[in-house]
Amino acid sequence: MKVKIGIVGYGNLGKATECEVLKNSRYKLVAIFSRRLVSSKFGTTIEPYENYLLYKNKIDVMLLCGSSKNDLEPQTKELAQHFDCINTFDNHSKILSHLQSLEKITTTSRHRAIVSCGWDPGLFSIIRALFYSATNQSPHTFWGKGMSLGHSDAIRRVAGVDDGVQFTIPNNEAIKLARQNKLTSSTPKHFRECFVTTTSQDKSKIENDIKNIPNYFKGQPVSVKFVSPQELLKLKSNTSHQGQIVSKSFDEECLEFKVKMKSNPIFTAKIMTRYIESISHLKEKGSCGAFTPLDIPVSYLFENRELLITKFC
Amino acid sequence: MKVKIGIVGYGNLGKATECEVLKNSRYKLVAIFSRRLVSSKFGTTIEPYENYLLYKNKIDVMLLCGSSKNDLEPQTKELAQHFDCINTFDNHSKILSHLQSLEKITTTSRHRAIVSCGWDPGLFSIIRALFYSATNQSPHTFWGKGMSLGHSDAIRRVAGVDDGVQFTIPNNEAIKLARQNKLTSSTPKHFRECFVTTTSQDKSKIENDIKNIPNYFKGQPVSVKFVSPQELLKLKSNTSHQGQIVSKSFDEECLEFKVKMKSNPIFTAKIMTRYIESISHLKEKGSCGAFTPLDIPVSYLFENRELLITKFC
Repeated sequence: MKVKIGIVGYGNLGKATECEVLKNSRYKLVAIFSRRLVSSKFGTTIEPYENYLLYKNKIDVMLLCGSSKNDLEPQTKELAQHFDCINTFDNHSKILSHLQSLEKITTTSRHRAIVSCGWDPGLFSIIRALFYSATNQSPHTFWGKGMSLGHSDAIRRVAGVDDGVQFTIPNNEAIKLARQNKLTSSTPKHFRECFVTTTSQDKSKIENDIKNIPNYFKGQPVSVKFVSPQELLKLKSNTSHQGQIVSKSFDEECLEFKVKMKSNPIFTAKIMTRYIESISHLKEKGSCGAFTPLDIPVSYLFENRELLITKFC
Repeated sequence: MKVKIGIVGYGNLGKATECEVLKNSRYKLVAIFSRRLVSSKFGTTIEPYENYLLYKNKIDVMLLCGSSKNDLEPQTKELAQHFDCINTFDNHSKILSHLQSLEKITTTSRHRAIVSCGWDPGLFSIIRALFYSATNQSPHTFWGKGMSLGHSDAIRRVAGVDDGVQFTIPNNEAIKLARQNKLTSSTPKHFRECFVTTTSQDKSKIENDIKNIPNYFKGQPVSVKFVSPQELLKLKSNTSHQGQIVSKSFDEECLEFKVKMKSNPIFTAKIMTRYIESISHLKEKGSCGAFTPLDIPVSYLFENRELLITKFC
């Protein structure tokens, strides 16, 4: 029997997720829930978010594709009362508390929620933990070159900024030091390139304000460039990204992981949809509760464990 | 309470494993079992292998450090009737059948056996499965430069060979093609460098015999060099190794993993001892049976799940 899927949120990630689900003959995409009036070019049923209860028992797994900033926490808590849920919640500092609140809800509802199933957090979380287990040294993560949604948001909140994006670029010098286990906080891990449109005359104030946003830019190597709306649109259309994890032990072991992707939302969608399989395995074992990718055996991402062991062990 | 550990086999891996276990204050090393008359420079109790039953209920987890060729299958099957067991069984084509025979034994004995917990198979198995899950393309594994135990064994079985070792060297051209998803069987993935000592006069026959060993060398780029016993000894003392996994999807995602190690047995021992923690978690959950690293959530390699999520998610 096919696993019945719902998608919540229909931005870039929701659209990429729709494609991934439709590709897999073992899944049936039942509906997409959105707050906006949208339509699917694949003819998928679109429902207002509030209608989700009409789909109780008609959808097995909800894939939550909204924003980590505003949507994922409240929506997952709501939906996990009635459905198995998977999200890509990426606010690293809040993952544990989000997980704990879902633990209570899913224990009562007898459902499963898997949180933070993207590439980072998600795939990268597993690699970081594996690297730490093998080297006993905390791994270093480097991102980019690629757009940072959080930093781009921060720029747009600065007075005078009409629109803006931020590209993160890893510092190769820092990567070299990480390979030698010599990276300290005195070497910046990233450069931050900001592109901004404005109609304000006081560009130097905007530049200064951006460079001094605490937590995001202050104290880091930041460049701010003013561009035309056309140039910004072109920059925004680049969804490619990269990431790298480096860990070096005191016994001369060095582990490195690297990923390059053309489309951040497509890669995120691929990983998230892989976790649908693990919901089926957890269900089969009678397991309820809230999980992160660290709690899921890799074999649960696949239908056939024996085949997996034969091919990849 | 400390986890009580036994080590079976006292070659390079057994010695490295002894060091790893002694480093961890949560473990108590009770005894090492060996077929040879040996002594430990750390004063660990050494017992003949046959005495293992005297340690029933005195040892929780047995770490099996013998050879995959002769020791690990029969010993793990024997010991899993009385103890939780971890091994590094590395005969890839026989892992599934080894696992299945242990599944029966451990279900009856109510113990746990985790097999193939080294770097390859083990860490590499997890990475290959993760890469496949993210790209839907079978990853390519490249080994070296480093010594291959299996291929060195094969050389030593050739008539006229006194002793020999084989170093595996990855073909950079093949790695480049793998990054583009264009690697086919027509490009060799590795070069195989053999070093041999002999007193025979017919060196060209030996060279020819080595190059034609089926499954190991035939049809592959192989070089054979004849060296003095002193030179061979020096070559044999080099326990460094490297490995790399590459996977490229049709959607322009490229994933790469790389490890360099100074000592193959030390790195293997580190990974194997990490799985002791997972035995405790499985026990706590009441799980018995046979497992591979693919069946173990990464969080089971750590004592504190919450801390792990906070640090690495």
